[in-house]
Formats: sequence, C-alpha cells, structure tokens
Amino acid sequence: MMSVTPFPEKKSTLDKKLQAVLDGEHAEIRNEAREFFSRPDMLPPQPGIPKEEYRELTMQWVNKLVEAGYSQIGFDAKYGGGGDAKKSINFIEILSHQDLSLMVKQGVNFGLFGLGVQNLGSAKHHEKYLNDIMNGRLKGGFAMTEVAGGSDVQGVKTEAVYDHATKSFTINTPNESARKAFIGNAAKHGEMMIVFAQLKMNKDAESEGVHAFLVPVRDKQGKILPGISIEDHGEKVGLNGVDNGYISFSNVKVPREEMLDRFASIDDKGQYQTDTPKKTARFFKMIGTLVTGRVALSVASLSAAKNALAAIVPYADTREVFGDILLNKQATQTRLFPLLADAYAMHFATRFLIDKFVAGSPEVETLAAALKAKSSDNAIRTIDEGRLTAGGSGYMAENRYGRMRDDIDVFRTFEGDNTVLRLLVARNRLTEIRKQFNDVSGLKKAIKMAGLAFDNATSTFDLGKGRTKESHLLNPAFQHDMFAKREAAMLYDMTQNIAKAAKKPGGAEAAVEKSQNDMIAYADAYAEKVMLEQFVKAVNEQKDPETKAVLKDVCDIFAINTMVKHAAWYIENGYMKPDKTRALADEAEKLHEKLRPNAVALVKAFGIPEALLSVPRPQAAVAPVKKTGTNGPKA
Amino acid sequence: MMSVTPFPEKKSTLDKKLQAVLDGEHAEIRNEAREFFSRPDMLPPQPGIPKEEYRELTMQWVNKLVEAGYSQIGFDAKYGGGGDAKKSINFIEILSHQDLSLMVKQGVNFGLFGLGVQNLGSAKHHEKYLNDIMNGRLKGGFAMTEVAGGSDVQGVKTEAVYDHATKSFTINTPNESARKAFIGNAAKHGEMMIVFAQLKMNKDAESEGVHAFLVPVRDKQGKILPGISIEDHGEKVGLNGVDNGYISFSNVKVPREEMLDRFASIDDKGQYQTDTPKKTARFFKMIGTLVTGRVALSVASLSAAKNALAAIVPYADTREVFGDILLNKQATQTRLFPLLADAYAMHFATRFLIDKFVAGSPEVETLAAALKAKSSDNAIRTIDEGRLTAGGSGYMAENRYGRMRDDIDVFRTFEGDNTVLRLLVARNRLTEIRKQFNDVSGLKKAIKMAGLAFDNATSTFDLGKGRTKESHLLNPAFQHDMFAKREAAMLYDMTQNIAKAAKKPGGAEAAVEKSQNDMIAYADAYAEKVMLEQFVKAVNEQKDPETKAVLKDVCDIFAINTMVKHAAWYIENGYMKPDKTRALADEAEKLHEKLRPNAVALVKAFGIPEALLSVPRPQAAVAPVKKTGTNGPKA
Repeated sequence: MMSVTPFPEKKSTLDKKLQAVLDGEHAEIRNEAREFFSRPDMLPPQPGIPKEEYRELTMQWVNKLVEAGYSQIGFDAKYGGGGDAKKSINFIEILSHQDLSLMVKQGVNFGLFGLGVQNLGSAKHHEKYLNDIMNGRLKGGFAMTEVAGGSDVQGVKTEAVYDHATKSFTINTPNESARKAFIGNAAKHGEMMIVFAQLKMNKDAESEGVHAFLVPVRDKQGKILPGISIEDHGEKVGLNGVDNGYISFSNVKVPREEMLDRFASIDDKGQYQTDTPKKTARFFKMIGTLVTGRVALSVASLSAAKNALAAIVPYADTREVFGDILLNKQATQTRLFPLLADAYAMHFATRFLIDKFVAGSPEVETLAAALKAKSSDNAIRTIDEGRLTAGGSGYMAENRYGRMRDDIDVFRTFEGDNTVLRLLVARNRLTEIRKQFNDVSGLKKAIKMAGLAFDNATSTFDLGKGRTKESHLLNPAFQHDMFAKREAAMLYDMTQNIAKAAKKPGGAEAAVEKSQNDMIAYADAYAEKVMLEQFVKAVNEQKDPETKAVLKDVCDIFAINTMVKHAAWYIENGYMKPDKTRALADEAEKLHEKLRPNAVALVKAFGIPEALLSVPRPQAAVAPVKKTGTNGPKA
Repeated sequence: MMSVTPFPEKKSTLDKKLQAVLDGEHAEIRNEAREFFSRPDMLPPQPGIPKEEYRELTMQWVNKLVEAGYSQIGFDAKYGGGGDAKKSINFIEILSHQDLSLMVKQGVNFGLFGLGVQNLGSAKHHEKYLNDIMNGRLKGGFAMTEVAGGSDVQGVKTEAVYDHATKSFTINTPNESARKAFIGNAAKHGEMMIVFAQLKMNKDAESEGVHAFLVPVRDKQGKILPGISIEDHGEKVGLNGVDNGYISFSNVKVPREEMLDRFASIDDKGQYQTDTPKKTARFFKMIGTLVTGRVALSVASLSAAKNALAAIVPYADTREVFGDILLNKQATQTRLFPLLADAYAMHFATRFLIDKFVAGSPEVETLAAALKAKSSDNAIRTIDEGRLTAGGSGYMAENRYGRMRDDIDVFRTFEGDNTVLRLLVARNRLTEIRKQFNDVSGLKKAIKMAGLAFDNATSTFDLGKGRTKESHLLNPAFQHDMFAKREAAMLYDMTQNIAKAAKKPGGAEAAVEKSQNDMIAYADAYAEKVMLEQFVKAVNEQKDPETKAVLKDVCDIFAINTMVKHAAWYIENGYMKPDKTRALADEAEKLHEKLRPNAVALVKAFGIPEALLSVPRPQAAVAPVKKTGTNGPKA
C-alpha cells in the first residue's frame, strides 16, 4: 500500500476569488439569500418527516419569503414588485440550495401562477391580483397538464364554452383522462388556478385553441368550491413538501373578465378577437411566456448539482481508503471532475440564458429548453455519482443524497419532459435555418462560408503531427471549432436526412419521427456549444492570473471530456483521427490530476451555506470511541 | 399529427414460451415462489410506511419464509437444510421481485450470517447453530464493514486478542472510526454477529490477519448484552425495512470455540494453526467464501431491472401522447430496448454464474464481481429510464419507481463497491494471465495463436465492402470476435501499460493506480463478453423457431448496442472502420423497430406476479369522469 501524503494546503483566497466570479453583479442578493437560508427556521427538515408536516413547513417557508420581501422581487414595479427578474432568478438559485420543495412551491405560486397572471393577462388582471399574489394573500397554481396528454399541452381536453347571454365561460372536464394532473398547490393551499382549456364560442363550435382562465378553487377558509373536484396525489418520489393534486371541473362558471387575454379576448359584442389569427402561432406565443419556468429550473438544477459537489468533494478530499485519499484516486477524479466542470460550464451558460431572457431575445425559448434538459440531467447524475463516491455513508438519509436525487428527479419531466424539450430544440433550429436560408443548399453555402466543412474533410485544425500536441488540444480556438462544427454539421445532416426521408410514405412528419435520436443528440450538441462559448468568454474576462488559470483548467476539462464523449462522432464524421481522440482521453486524465489541488476551492466557491450541507465529514469519525458501555438502539 | 394505428395483437403463446426458457430447470420453485409472493400478506407496503412498521413487517416476512420452508433450501442437508444452492438462488431471484428490504434482510440473516457459519466454521459450529439459524430461532448478522475502512476489509481495526489462560478472545473497538457500520439486523433483531477482527495472539503481538468470531449481541428478550454498543442508522435512502446499525465492542469475551475456524484455529496448547501460512492468501480464501452474496445480488439486481421493464413496457405500449403510442416512438425504443436486451443478456450470464458457483469453479470470484457490478448498475439505470418514460405518473410513489430506485441504489455499494469490484476483476485477470503465461511476451504469443490480433490490424471480419452488410453485422461469429478481441486486447494493453509504468517512481503499485480507468473499463468488457457468449449459446439451444428468432433479435440488440457504445474504442484500436460503426448504429434502430411488436411478450415472460407491479395502466384513466361533484382532498 502507498503511504498517505497529505495534500499541500489550498490557497485560502482562491475560493473567495472564484466565488466573486460566480456571483458576479448579484453578490449582494446572493449573500443576503445565503444568510436567510442559514436561519434555523429555514433549515431543511429531518429525513422521514411526515408528508403533511412537510407540506405545512413548506407553506410557512413560502410565507417567510413574503415577509422578508423576497417573493416580490420579480414582479412588475407598477403593482408593488421589485421589477428585477434577474435579481429574482439569482435569489431562486440560492434558494434552491436549501430545499427543492420550497423551490417548487414558491415557483408554482409566484412563478407559474403569479407571473402567469402578469404575462398572460392584461392591466385589469394585474391591478386586481398581482399585489395580492406577490404578498401571499392569494395563493394559486397552474392547471395545465392533463392525465392523458402529459407534455402535449396543445391537446388538452378541458373545455371552456362561452355564453354571451351570461357573459361567462362554463368549464368542464370531459372524462377522467382529461383531469388536470400533478398540479402543485392543488391538494392543500391553492385558492385560484390558471386553467388551460380549449375555448369554444358555443358548445358545438370548433375550438379556438388553448386559452387560460382564472378559476377560484377554494374559499378563504380552504373549502373547495362547488363544481371543483380535487384529489390528492399523496406520496411522491420526492418533493413531498409540495401538495400536488388532480383537479376536475363540472360546469364551473367563469366571468368573461377572468380569461387571461393578452393574446386573445372576447369583446363586448361576444366576438372572439385576436392579433394572431393562426391558432398554432397563438398557442406558441402563449406558451412562449412560460419560458420563465424553464429558466428557473435550469438554475435550480444547477444549484442541486452544486450541492452534491460541495458535499462530496471535501468528503473525498479527506476520506482515506485502501491506504490513500479517495480524491487522489484516478477513478474518483474521473467520476467527479467532469461533473464539476459541467457545473461551471452550466453556470456560465445559465448567466447567458438569464441575460437573453431578460432582454426578451427570440432565441430564449430554444436556449431555455436546451439548458433545462441538460442542467436537470447533469444534476441527477452528479447527485448519483456523489452518492456512490460517498459509499455506505451516502446511503444514510441524514446525508441528503437520497432526498436530493428524489427531489431533482422530476425536474427532468415537468415544465416539459426533457425528451420533448430536446425535440423542440431541434425543431426550432430546423425552422430557423429553413427561414434563414430558404433552402438547404443555401444553408450549405452559408455554413461553408463560415468556415465549417461538411465534406468529411479533416479539420483545418488537424495539423499533421501537431494534431495530438497538448498546446493544440488546449487551444480554445480548436475546441470552439470542434464544438461549433459538431453543432452545425448535426443540424445540416438532420436537414438532409429529413428532406430525403420526407419523400417516402408518411412524408415530413414521419421523417421527423424517424430522426428523433439525431434530434435529441443535436439538442445536447447545441447546449454544449453554448456552454463552451460562455465558459471561454468567462475565462477570457478574468484579470487575476490565478483565477484565470484555474478556470481555464476547468474549462479544458469540460471541453476535452465532452469531445471524448463524442469521439466516435468526430471520427465517423471526419473531424478527428483516432490518434487525436486517444490523445484527448489521455489529456483528460492529466487535467484531472492538475485540478486535484484546487478541487475543494472550486466547490467552496459555490458559497453554499455550511448548514445546508449536512454531510458528516470523515474526520468527525476518527475521534477515540466513547467507552460509554451498553446502550440500546435509539429508535 | 399521425393517426394512431393499433398494434397487431401479440401472439399469446410467445410470452409463455419465453418464460419457459428463462425459468429453465427451475420452473417449479419459481412458480411456487410467484404464488407465495402474490399472497395478500406478502405484498409490498404502501408508500410512506413508517420505518419501524416497515422493519417489523419485514421481520414477519422473514419468519414466513421459515414457516413456508423456503429459508432452509440452501443449507447443508446434514443439518436439516435442502442442500440445493441453485434452487435457493432461483427462489431469491423471484423473491427480489417483491421487496428488496426482504431480499436484504433474509440475505443478511440466512446468507451472510447463516451461510457464513456454514462456510467459515467447522462441524462444531454447524451442529450447534445451523439448524437454529435456518429455522429462524437464531437471528444474526455480519459485522464486517467499519466506518473508516469501507470496502477495505483487510484493513479492519477491530481487535480480538487471545488469552490462553481463559481460552477466550477479548474483542475491542479501538476508536469511533473502527465501529462496525451499516450492519443489517443490528439495530433491532440480531442476536448474534459474525464479527471480523484482527486476531492477535497477545495484546502486543502482530495481527495474524482478519478472522471471524461468533459474538452474541442480544439476549432472547432483545436486550443488548454487556460490552456491546449499538446505534441505529435510522432512515436510509431506501431499504427502510432493514434495521442497520453501528456496533462497537468494549472488552467483549468470546470463548475459543466461537472462532470460525475453517481456515485457521487455535489448538489446545494455545498455538495458532493454519494450512495457509501466508496471511494474504488466508484472507482471500476466507473472503472467497463470501461470493454467495455477490451471486445473490447479481440475480436480485436483475429482478429489479425486470420489475421496471415489466412495468414500463406495457405502459408505453398503450400510452398515447402527441397522437401516437409512446412505444412506437424512436426515442422510447432507443431508451428501453437496449435495457431490455441487457436484462436478457444478464439473465443468461447469471445462469452461467450460478452453474460456476455451484460447481465451485475458481473463476467464480472474478465472474461474480464483474456481474454484480454490471447487474446493479444496469438495474438502477433501467429503473430510472422507466421512471422517465412513465413521465409524471412515474413520479407518484404508488407506482414504485422511486422505492425501486432507492432500494437498488446501495446494491452498487454493499458486498463490495462496484468500483472496487471492477478493479478486483482486472487485478484477478492480470494475475491469472501472469501465472498462465509467465510473462507478457508469452501472453502476446498465446493470444496471437488464438487468432486475436493486437497490432491495430483491421479485423479478419472486416470484409472490404461487405463489412457494413446486415448479414455480417448480425453474424454471431463476427459479434463474438469483436467482444472477445476487445476483452483480450484491453487485458493485453493493461499488462503493457502497467509494465511500462512500473519502471517509473512508485513502481508497480503506482502503475496500477494510474490504470484505474482502464481497469474499470476492462471489467465491463469482461462481463459483456460473458453476457454475449451465454446469450448466443441460449439462442442456439432453442428448438422452437419463433422463440429462437425473437431471442436472436434481442441478442442482436444487445450485441449491436454494446458495440456502438464502444465505437470509439473499436476504431481507435483498428478493429472497425467508421463506416462500420455508423452501420451498427443504423442497424440498432432497425432492430428496435423489428422488436417492437414482441416487446410486451418479452417482459411478460419475466413472469412477475401482477400484484407486484402496481403500476396503473393508462387505459384505467380513460373511463368517463365520475360526476360526483365536490370532494375534498383525501389527505
């Protein structure tokens, strides 16, 4: 066995410098949030807490957000809000370190419901409701998903039929499979729901498409209102602080004014009015406002991944096993460091997403879908690898890996199933490309002009003998070229394959169906390109040499491991030779060893309050045994 | 949107024919077990069951196994057992469909403890204890793992010091980090533990190595005995029907006869006696007897994977979403069918493992380690993909994906952490090879003679233009060649790399440490080769043409997807050209479509009692809504 060589002490300031980079312009609200969630009354509950108790605790936490003035940050200043979406997202990012039940419950209440009213409604709704919602006087939810439809929102079966005589809608659930399902805040606390239903101008008319209605479901005493049926979903895999339920409607009358009418309304003569006559276009405009949720889930998932890293890296840094420190082992480094690099890459990518979101950029829908899928997948993998690295102690509930995994799990499903979102990314990009270049040959020409070769030629960066040299592999220009080529080439190949297959029976739609695997892989290539670009940009912005050098190493680990993951693709498509992919794999191992001494500083830089990382440190276990004699089991 | 075309009805007998293949010679005990675990009193508990209640329920189940005569099957017939290890493993395989807490609790009690006494002790222990153990009159556990040591059993710190004056050992826990940790049956029900400790012939002597001792920890009234301290681990991520605890020892006296003395004993003169003078060799002989546990975990993990497949495939077969059936979608097929094929491959591989185990074959340690790691990893992935495919309904606790995942999770850690096991596989194989061929050049020659080329030459099967033809890709000889070459080449490369690196400072041990990634990858290549070989053999044995054809498709899906996963390796090492790896990926998609109509029959063939698969079918949700008016939440 090897002797254990203690690692040289980490430079104490590196983590602070890195934290300053990660916190950026929002250090103030992030630090305030860190302090807030370290309060004893905000700490996550013990394992085994009964569901009903957990639900009440979460509800109290939501109220405390209101009292402390945090729930208002993202709302329109005109109605008493802070008017600062960016600050609000930064707050939610820190909140997500604490407990994901709170993240989801406040997200349902203030985000889906509150911002839903803000984004789908008009001034009359804002005036009537926004101040009450942001200040916790009106609690609500978002009744979109149905049992049968799942992520297929355009196909909801709930109906709202208009009657001009009473100037009201009648809302009905036509059958069991059209019940609203998994609705947060439904089982216990919600007083009002934004209900998505097919709008019909009379009971025999064709639907005008999916519209949103404000429907009270409980009175102030918590009694369920007539015509509303609610069933509790009971225990879930995780997020048991959130009260999810089914909702169905039986002849529920809703006044005309309670239709959220930003994109369509019913005028005084009882006529349907809209600026967007095409039904599908109208639907996507409406759905487009929901991107806030996906932005929030992207950063919340990132926080969950960081929680796992901040727990496991310091553990592995001191845990001795088989005569060595766990984190010195190649297998442990290979397990954790690519995920650490993913978290950093995702951090910078989500800053980009937040900026685009706040700027109202048209690409935000695609970007949010791609990053939400990637970030939530990364999170569960990171938590799982943390659990594995912690061994048996990771399986003890007190160490929180189980709840972290169970809570984050459904982040891959709600607000758009990750598979559905990846298909959406690819579809959106295919549409953009078609619009931009009119036809495929135009695309081909344009991409060629941008220096991207598609003819299976070796990369311009594949420099003969130099192609496996470290200086070349770590060159950001080479790395970016490889990520950009992959994204562009996959997009181009998809257009080609779909165009070819569309000529067969089944046409374009069948061709797209048979391209799902390519589309899904494409969506990740798109996300990875954004992640690399934003990471490289962040590295370049650093002035402090140490900070810059460490971030460059992390960026390289992200870049190299991502290319290694796609080695077969690069070779098959002629962008790399096999000696290069091998050299990349070797380089990854070297970079992991190089990163080793800075690993703890890199996770400390996440600035997660110690109180939220209740993972016993291994050194706590080496005190001499207390010879207290016999004692029975505690339980 | 595409119209929904109902799938042609499955041939009703296919599932029965496949089940007959899977059940093989043990159909009788497997069917008996299926009936037993369908009994209302054996059904898994509801979600949210409190820990203490779950523990008592699990204890009652263990007693019912005794009453029904199942706990005795694997024990020595001489002492009242059934003397049939193979039958016992088949029973446990079906048991594992029911509830993994029971699987683990009975495994601790009858397997680790009972078979531990049988395998590590001698006739005097067998006579004194075996009948009581197998008949539930003496409950016990296996106190091996310690807080600090984890999977490093050779390094346990608990001490047993012999004193010939009293002819007894004194057992002590030297410090907190040497407490026995995660010990099943410790917190509540265990009366006696097999305790692993360093044996010293006097308090200043050097240790003779790790030995096993029978130590009572509770009296018949459940009172903890003097000198024993037990702490309850409390809530765990999963397996909350099992009562795990820490145990420590303070001057606990154990009579000489209670040392399990199969490999070493203390004679009447107080002298240490052994047939295996080398300490490490003795340790590995002792540890070798523990392979039973890994065999059991391999099949239990397989059963868990089958549970998820048997739940999700019929669900996806009828679930409509976005205008089509979920299982018709390429993305769903790509998600589930490779895992279905993995389960079949693992089924046949574990039959091989069981045969080798019962025959006492020397390769069983390596084989069990490789398959335990692979099977438990496959299981959690399969459950997770099932959860994802089921969408929001998969997140409802009643549908069991959460508990399945939380329960199987630690199967990757206990009885040897999967990473440690994979390193063990590689180390064992390296040792075998070194013994067999004396030196590396001998190995090289031998492998060349066996027709395996290592000089980066293209495969003999890489037939020019024919190399991407379907008939070639589906040729079992080609597939086997690729799996065998990969296993052999990786082994050879490891020997070369380690030999080269061993010349550097740090020597052989450091060289091995720096080869962990290769070793881990090798262990899976070794497992995959066994899986393919056993699957191909099973296909060849079929007489019924339909059964044979379907199994061949599944085997192809396993073979092709495994090769696709390793595409970069095959190219980098010169065994495939990029056009071939692309052709393999295309072939996988074709095979998935071909398998589609038989998917439900393939999972029905697992023969899992319907009562154990409490996953609501989607058709249950399409009944017209009951207009019962208002009702409050159930909770």
